[in-house]
Amino acid sequence: MRKVTVYITLKQGVLDPQGKAIQESLNSLGYNEIEDARVGKYIELKVEDGPALEARVTEMCDKLLANPVIEDYRFDVEEAWGL
Amino acid sequence: MRKVTVYITLKQGVLDPQGKAIQESLNSLGYNEIEDARVGKYIELKVEDGPALEARVTEMCDKLLANPVIEDYRFDVEEAWGL
Repeated sequence: MRKVTVYITLKQGVLDPQGKAIQESLNSLGYNEIEDARVGKYIELKVEDGPALEARVTEMCDKLLANPVIEDYRFDVEEAWGL
Repeated sequence: MRKVTVYITLKQGVLDPQGKAIQESLNSLGYNEIEDARVGKYIELKVEDGPALEARVTEMCDKLLANPVIEDYRFDVEEAWGL
């Protein structure tokens, strides 16, 4: 069993209202050192090991997990689940 | 300027309907090797460097970014923004 961690972020230049709201909230709480905030998704997958693991995870990202129009993704395959 | 990446995940044992939906969708697309999926938030902060940077980011997570009842968080402080 492998652990795959997928990171999905908005492409550069795509407006991030959620990030903007976080930045403004932090500034209003007195954390003026925060200049920008970008929010993305972080998905941990528990995957049965297999020969074409990386190719299939790429397919999963392209087909379902990320929106190719506005999002970029990358993923890490870790040795084993739970370590 | 520093880049701080915050990872926010649901605590173990907290139901993750979004993760469940992703797992079932991937299985229905034929990716039966997916046994579990957990979804979290991933926030990139652009932060003016300062003496108590880590302590203040911890405060930001406790006060705003993470819900301490159902979420865990960790963060990485990177050398400089944009590298």
